[in-house]
Amino acid sequence: MRFSPLLDELIKSLQVLPGVGPKSAQRMAFALLERQRAGGRKLAHVLSRSLDHIGHCRQCRTFTEEALCPLCANPKRAANGQLCIVESPADVVAIEQTGQYRGRYFVLMGHLSPLDGIGPEDLGLDRLADWLAAEVFEELILATNPTVEGEATAYFIADIARRQGVRVSRIAHGVPIGGELELVDGNTLSHSLMGRKAFAD
Amino acid sequence: MRFSPLLDELIKSLQVLPGVGPKSAQRMAFALLERQRAGGRKLAHVLSRSLDHIGHCRQCRTFTEEALCPLCANPKRAANGQLCIVESPADVVAIEQTGQYRGRYFVLMGHLSPLDGIGPEDLGLDRLADWLAAEVFEELILATNPTVEGEATAYFIADIARRQGVRVSRIAHGVPIGGELELVDGNTLSHSLMGRKAFAD
Repeated sequence: MRFSPLLDELIKSLQVLPGVGPKSAQRMAFALLERQRAGGRKLAHVLSRSLDHIGHCRQCRTFTEEALCPLCANPKRAANGQLCIVESPADVVAIEQTGQYRGRYFVLMGHLSPLDGIGPEDLGLDRLADWLAAEVFEELILATNPTVEGEATAYFIADIARRQGVRVSRIAHGVPIGGELELVDGNTLSHSLMGRKAFAD
Repeated sequence: MRFSPLLDELIKSLQVLPGVGPKSAQRMAFALLERQRAGGRKLAHVLSRSLDHIGHCRQCRTFTEEALCPLCANPKRAANGQLCIVESPADVVAIEQTGQYRGRYFVLMGHLSPLDGIGPEDLGLDRLADWLAAEVFEELILATNPTVEGEATAYFIADIARRQGVRVSRIAHGVPIGGELELVDGNTLSHSLMGRKAFAD
């Protein structure tokens, strides 16, 4: 025993959270018991309700408590004919905030990672193939992260899409707006050079 | 709306935890929903049970789900005649692990901090005074942290104890065991010099 049995159990349970070790869990438990009892009760309630009700959208796989997420349920989005592939629900929010995209999404909930045992089925790529076969899309936009795994995943999905005759594009990678050339890493800069476009007047 | 209403609420509720901002809360929510549903359910359950049942020991104020914590309920501890004052339940655990102390504790659950509105009543010092008046103690050991607030709190409590005729001591401050003089800060080193003792043969 370190603390009382129930407090020990609380500290252990809090370590299920990513990035929370024994010390932070102890600090969290003390803070909740000492100053945040109302907030803690709310958290316990919302957490249990979320785990009971939040599942995946049956079309795009993002988190939602409905069968279809609001974006997939929107007929204007369906009429647009574009499909954007992202790794996480947070990427959907980031792209939505640009206001530049009016199509639908497919959320992989990760990327291909054979070493971690994450294969195409875990990313729902069989369902994506079915979707591309069942509906006519004008364009599939690959917006996976520009990491080794993200690129490999993008190549894999491009293959599936081309087999269905869908045009495939990849979001541009290069020097970030407001960034200084001097501070940008060489890899990004060489992408930026290779991806150069005719200068618009 | 950023995510679904329930997911937004979960991300907001997680921010009640100390050191958790919007980004970490989002990462925690995704991890729980994606990979840790069983752990999350356990956390919700244990958290709600802890908030319902864990209170303060009516004697020493530490966290416990009983009326008296195991240390206060132990008659051997009571017979010892020593009382150690600490700031937090974690300090009790740290001192217990040394195996050097067999008396009882009084846990302040903080330190005097007038700027944050934390006065003597918030630390239960009125109850401590009553306890010192009701029972005969041989020694009161001040083990508050060696910070400005911890020192001020120690002085305040020493006054209370002296008024009850209890002998007061303060744990030693100095160069930590295994530390190198060269790397110890000047303040600690001057404490270490002032607190020097006759060398035992």
